[in-house]
Amino acid sequence: MERIPILKMGRFLLVTIQVDMHDELAMTLQEDLTGRIIEDRAQGVLIDISSVEIVDSFIGGMIANIAGMARMLDAETVLVGMRPAVAITLVELGMSLSGVRTALNVDKGMAMLQAAREEKRRFSGSY
Amino acid sequence: MERIPILKMGRFLLVTIQVDMHDELAMTLQEDLTGRIIEDRAQGVLIDISSVEIVDSFIGGMIANIAGMARMLDAETVLVGMRPAVAITLVELGMSLSGVRTALNVDKGMAMLQAAREEKRRFSGSY
Repeated sequence: MERIPILKMGRFLLVTIQVDMHDELAMTLQEDLTGRIIEDRAQGVLIDISSVEIVDSFIGGMIANIAGMARMLDAETVLVGMRPAVAITLVELGMSLSGVRTALNVDKGMAMLQAAREEKRRFSGSY
Repeated sequence: MERIPILKMGRFLLVTIQVDMHDELAMTLQEDLTGRIIEDRAQGVLIDISSVEIVDSFIGGMIANIAGMARMLDAETVLVGMRPAVAITLVELGMSLSGVRTALNVDKGMAMLQAAREEKRRFSGSY
């Protein structure tokens, strides 16, 4: 299983990280995800990392990259299910993941994306 | 990463199978899932197998078990994202997975679970 599945839920995409990431898998995920954002006209990306127990600068960088790419394509990124140990490590590594929102779980992450979308619509005055 | 994460989405639970299943992991998943159905009062379970390329009687049996257990706990199971090759293999193995519904993707699976829930409510006349 050489790809991480990207699930479409309404206007959002969900990615669950379950396996150890390596260079090639991370590249494939980034390509797949950016492609799917366009294809599905996704307005948000949820990345579930509740299974991730250990994080390093590679994974941290990958998440920051994905969020940056998604933003370019007009989609918000929300990181869900972060374990306390992972939060500690990310801060210790000096990766603040600025611009990436976090939520406790998928439900809350989706609510956050929906709220962000509503707000955007109100300010832009259009759909 | 010794567990498969179970994500709560409203009244439903979502499980994405990304890694090769073995006995212990399957047992853990069954225990976790039945526990979560009760805990979250889930009314449906979505199992995404879009990453599963090869299926054998073990995985087929595990899916049938999960669906059976969920049904006992008053939750419907919908299998989403099955690849054509997997469907062929399951039929060839003589596993018809009776009682397990299937849907093309998570969106359609959720719509199916929602419809089933509405119908149930109408017939029972109560929430």
